[in-house]
Amino acid sequence: MSNSFHPPVRSLMGPGPSDVNPRVLEALSRPTIGHLDPEFIRLMDEIKGLLQYAFKTRNELTLPISAPGSAGMEAVFVNLLERGDKAIVCSNGAFGGRMQENVERAGCTAVMVHDDWGKAIDLEKVETALKQHPDAKLLAFVHAETSTGVRSDAQALAALARQYDCLAVVDAVTSLGGVELDVDGWGIDAIYSGSQKCLSCIPGLSPVSFSPKAVEVIKTRKTKVQSWFLDMNLVMGYWGQSSKRSYHHTAPINPLYALHEALLCLHEEGLDNAWARHTLHHTAFVAGLEAMGLSVLVAQESRLPQLNAVCVPQGVDEALLRSTLLAQYDLEIGAGLGTLAGKIWRVGLMGYASSQKNVLHCLTALESALVAQKAEVQTARAVSAALSVYG
Amino acid sequence: MSNSFHPPVRSLMGPGPSDVNPRVLEALSRPTIGHLDPEFIRLMDEIKGLLQYAFKTRNELTLPISAPGSAGMEAVFVNLLERGDKAIVCSNGAFGGRMQENVERAGCTAVMVHDDWGKAIDLEKVETALKQHPDAKLLAFVHAETSTGVRSDAQALAALARQYDCLAVVDAVTSLGGVELDVDGWGIDAIYSGSQKCLSCIPGLSPVSFSPKAVEVIKTRKTKVQSWFLDMNLVMGYWGQSSKRSYHHTAPINPLYALHEALLCLHEEGLDNAWARHTLHHTAFVAGLEAMGLSVLVAQESRLPQLNAVCVPQGVDEALLRSTLLAQYDLEIGAGLGTLAGKIWRVGLMGYASSQKNVLHCLTALESALVAQKAEVQTARAVSAALSVYG
Repeated sequence: MSNSFHPPVRSLMGPGPSDVNPRVLEALSRPTIGHLDPEFIRLMDEIKGLLQYAFKTRNELTLPISAPGSAGMEAVFVNLLERGDKAIVCSNGAFGGRMQENVERAGCTAVMVHDDWGKAIDLEKVETALKQHPDAKLLAFVHAETSTGVRSDAQALAALARQYDCLAVVDAVTSLGGVELDVDGWGIDAIYSGSQKCLSCIPGLSPVSFSPKAVEVIKTRKTKVQSWFLDMNLVMGYWGQSSKRSYHHTAPINPLYALHEALLCLHEEGLDNAWARHTLHHTAFVAGLEAMGLSVLVAQESRLPQLNAVCVPQGVDEALLRSTLLAQYDLEIGAGLGTLAGKIWRVGLMGYASSQKNVLHCLTALESALVAQKAEVQTARAVSAALSVYG
Repeated sequence: MSNSFHPPVRSLMGPGPSDVNPRVLEALSRPTIGHLDPEFIRLMDEIKGLLQYAFKTRNELTLPISAPGSAGMEAVFVNLLERGDKAIVCSNGAFGGRMQENVERAGCTAVMVHDDWGKAIDLEKVETALKQHPDAKLLAFVHAETSTGVRSDAQALAALARQYDCLAVVDAVTSLGGVELDVDGWGIDAIYSGSQKCLSCIPGLSPVSFSPKAVEVIKTRKTKVQSWFLDMNLVMGYWGQSSKRSYHHTAPINPLYALHEALLCLHEEGLDNAWARHTLHHTAFVAGLEAMGLSVLVAQESRLPQLNAVCVPQGVDEALLRSTLLAQYDLEIGAGLGTLAGKIWRVGLMGYASSQKNVLHCLTALESALVAQKAEVQTARAVSAALSVYG
């Protein structure tokens, strides 16, 4: 234990973290200042503005929780729910189950609406549940399922929630910055994301945003939020108006430098351009996969461009292939989770990692590792198919 | 919002964050790798070993929570307590009150033992409470009160807890690495700290450790921990044996590089040397203060070397003085909290910031800013008094 740690230089094409822009790493290591320093307070205001841009919202209560995405998820549920409340929770992958855990641990009832892993959330089933449970306080769903690579129709789901007088709660951990998302336009009441996916920041922060309606719910609670650390009534005082800021906890200063820089990169590129870039590289990647003879799990209309679920061909040792990619190409891709373990690889093209260079590197490495396993793939076609997309 | 953020270069001599060693900032910005990468898993094992060294413990369950110290505090209470339990909580400053909040939000009863802000915890009062409440499950107290600069006798308090069959729970946010602390030797059952105090890492991580007895309590709970994110039964699976690690949340990779490097610095220096260094610079600083005519709030026997509560002289505008230090000397010191607001400054000499350079810089700046306010201080004596301590 007596040496400094020098990590290998990887290409991060798994389900996150994604490759971090060198600009962001450089910002991360700038000198630490105090969390009550006037300069830091100015930075907090800028981060808030940049997050409002990324979420497409004017919500006052928009800020990064000082902990990973799973804490952002928990913050949303423990603040909006009080013991005995009922929530409708959609589950079409690993993260629906985690939302259920959060609801139940808050002393509430989770009415589950299940869809198969790999499918988008079925709107009709959700509407049936909303009709059957008029006392539900919120409808929660995952916009971009990191475990399967599926995009659900967040706009339609949020509209359904409104129609049945429920708060619309959205998991945008993997969607923010990668695909269209419009918090105000779609009428989303509470949303949480992660720093390490399409924002290409380091892991450890969870941007959240609450609508005025959600804030009203939080402010008029009858009981205290069960978590002191995540109590938005207290966090609001810390991230609120600069002039009357009150100490809550010590913010993670340097990671917030990094988040600011990552959001600045997104703002410079522009949301529409970032979404288009994710689509472009996804299209090229899938063209390459198909030319090779591989297939993608998810139906075309609900594929996430930033997370590609690639079916493992018969006879291929999927874990060995991932080890080969890591050892020989410094390339990380993800394994399947739950019911999809052993059946898919999860290839991320998120944020800074969504690039032509990564697409070609991954196709080349995949092909070579499959050939080494004597898999039946069409060789020497993938790269040219991908390149033809770039034109 | 269109520019990169370039923080000013401050000397951080407030209640934390403290100055971060440049080695730690450099480690922080190394390339991000995945949280399931074999190299990262090796890093986790090293961090665990280095934390065991810092805490002086062989506790298996020793790891950094992926969030600030207040989340570490919450992790300890929500894991050890179940609804309806009773806890004895000592309060002699701001953080005793926060422990009370955590106990009550977990649906439990907090029996409070109060002492004045600025005084150490009274052992007799604690023993009386232990006798009156034989059904209490734990005794919780703050080792080093960041709000007042007071050290309480953690060894004696932990012994009392054991004597009355209570778990001993210790807030070591400001003590770890700065003053003597011996988790196994003193029989502490659960302890949490912060990365940004005497470890001189960036803020945002909370090292914790649980004794085998505490682990048994957590493993045999009748109810689930109310926080999914902080459930040690799940976190254990993630930070446990490398061979059977299971995914829980995405660890904050880069901040963990920084923590590893900060712990390595402590290990290289040696715990005893680090404690002695904190005492030396504190002694020099107080000699300088007293030569100037200033006084320290806390009685000598319970002063923390790493956090000095300096009494604001009559007629001095304490907020103006802090602004002057920040603007003219890039020097941050802290204000008083609660009942001590306006009455004290809190001057940290923590970790990397506990140095001769900082002592002399702070004395010089303080003297000059006090003179500018026409305060009655003895000038031109402070630095030589401090230097005489260094010999």
